[in-house]
Amino acid sequence: MDNPNTAQPPAHLLDQAPGAPVRSGIPEHGRIPKYYAVKARIAVLIEELGDGKALPTERDLAVRYEVARETVRQALRELLLEGRLRRQGRGTVVAGPKLEQPLSLASYTEGVRRQGRRPGRHLISLDRFPCPPVLAAEIRADVGEPVWHMERVLLADDERVGLESTYVPVGLVPRLDGDFEPDSSFYAYLRDELGIAFGDADERIETVLATPREALLVGTPPALPMLLIHRLSRDTSGRPLERVRTLYRGDRFSFTTHLGHTAGVTDNG
Amino acid sequence: MDNPNTAQPPAHLLDQAPGAPVRSGIPEHGRIPKYYAVKARIAVLIEELGDGKALPTERDLAVRYEVARETVRQALRELLLEGRLRRQGRGTVVAGPKLEQPLSLASYTEGVRRQGRRPGRHLISLDRFPCPPVLAAEIRADVGEPVWHMERVLLADDERVGLESTYVPVGLVPRLDGDFEPDSSFYAYLRDELGIAFGDADERIETVLATPREALLVGTPPALPMLLIHRLSRDTSGRPLERVRTLYRGDRFSFTTHLGHTAGVTDNG
Repeated sequence: MDNPNTAQPPAHLLDQAPGAPVRSGIPEHGRIPKYYAVKARIAVLIEELGDGKALPTERDLAVRYEVARETVRQALRELLLEGRLRRQGRGTVVAGPKLEQPLSLASYTEGVRRQGRRPGRHLISLDRFPCPPVLAAEIRADVGEPVWHMERVLLADDERVGLESTYVPVGLVPRLDGDFEPDSSFYAYLRDELGIAFGDADERIETVLATPREALLVGTPPALPMLLIHRLSRDTSGRPLERVRTLYRGDRFSFTTHLGHTAGVTDNG
Repeated sequence: MDNPNTAQPPAHLLDQAPGAPVRSGIPEHGRIPKYYAVKARIAVLIEELGDGKALPTERDLAVRYEVARETVRQALRELLLEGRLRRQGRGTVVAGPKLEQPLSLASYTEGVRRQGRRPGRHLISLDRFPCPPVLAAEIRADVGEPVWHMERVLLADDERVGLESTYVPVGLVPRLDGDFEPDSSFYAYLRDELGIAFGDADERIETVLATPREALLVGTPPALPMLLIHRLSRDTSGRPLERVRTLYRGDRFSFTTHLGHTAGVTDNG
């Protein structure tokens, strides 16, 4: 441990970004993996270039940093997984910042609009099936009662950014397959067509790896870390409405919340 | 798209876990990667075995599923990254469920206790350094004013589960290096020793890969997906108190929140 009473800070602390890990690439034993040193230098280059600018080729970077192309490739792989770079055609460009979506009852549609992006949804499948026991307990349906499963890809400015599965009793929205425009907000449909208002929801957020099918549907590299949000929504009388499982690209999304003192958590919209 | 009017669901929907991705391993073109088929079979085995039970060896699994050991290894790697398995000594055992930590002003200490686990923190470093411009703007300090950086490993039942960096003006807590017991809650210290009460906080949650140093400190495999929470806390008068960057093992943690209607978000403690 450094001497906390020293007025002059160690040099490595002077130029660090606030909130960034201190000496982030340097294990305690002092050896920096070679690919990580290259990654740190490319990260500086990314800052200098700015959003949307093309990165030099792997070959050029390998020559510039005097390392093997495989070393450059490993550094680029992590920067791509973290969303600091993205593929564009055959090249690699600097990615914009992650979308900051508020954790709130507001729909995906509203959240994306607030950030000046154009939201969209693309229907993958709409099936009905008999409610299995665990889902029945969650949404207070009868076991075997018909339930819709609606699966949609989430879009932001035509970019595929997530995958959403909605489970809702057929009894609640019997004409979902006929009435509902799958490119629109399901919440707006419930409110405007059926007069059902959302009351509250419980959410759980975790990180998971994309399955091969999910990676294919969302257009991500396989095993990209995703943010998975489980939601159970209720109407204003406390009756469960739907169970939702939404997968967001971990390289494109972050979620914000405002925490209040007494209530614990309040809106940050 | 399947016919939504069919009363009998497709067979693959009948036995799925609610909330689970439908046909999760099966790309639309119908080819299942071989390692993923093995992963799905090991996932069933994990369910049968239950928490803490030892998995058969790689060799035994390769024989059982008639695949190469490298195929088994790829399946196990993902199950480990997802926290469904964990290493124990030289073997691999079924992991317990992820900790569910509420997103709230409550400290890490309280959150972990609520789940019946024993919280702890281990000090890695305590440095003071001149406040850089971006951090100064966030915590409303003067550029160059001394700021503490305290870095602690988070423990749950002696297991290392995260890494927390706290940035706080030295002027606010001048005797942090002498007074404060780094294994205890910083929030309790502020409240009990200095009479400072937390008012509210803004948080942002994202997924990132562990850096080599972070992986070493937390004892995770390199490049394990982590959940990173950025926090800016204020006192009851709205004055910024601290900037915190907390990294949680993505295979061990999930975060919960309760979303209310008008306020947008309320506590789920």
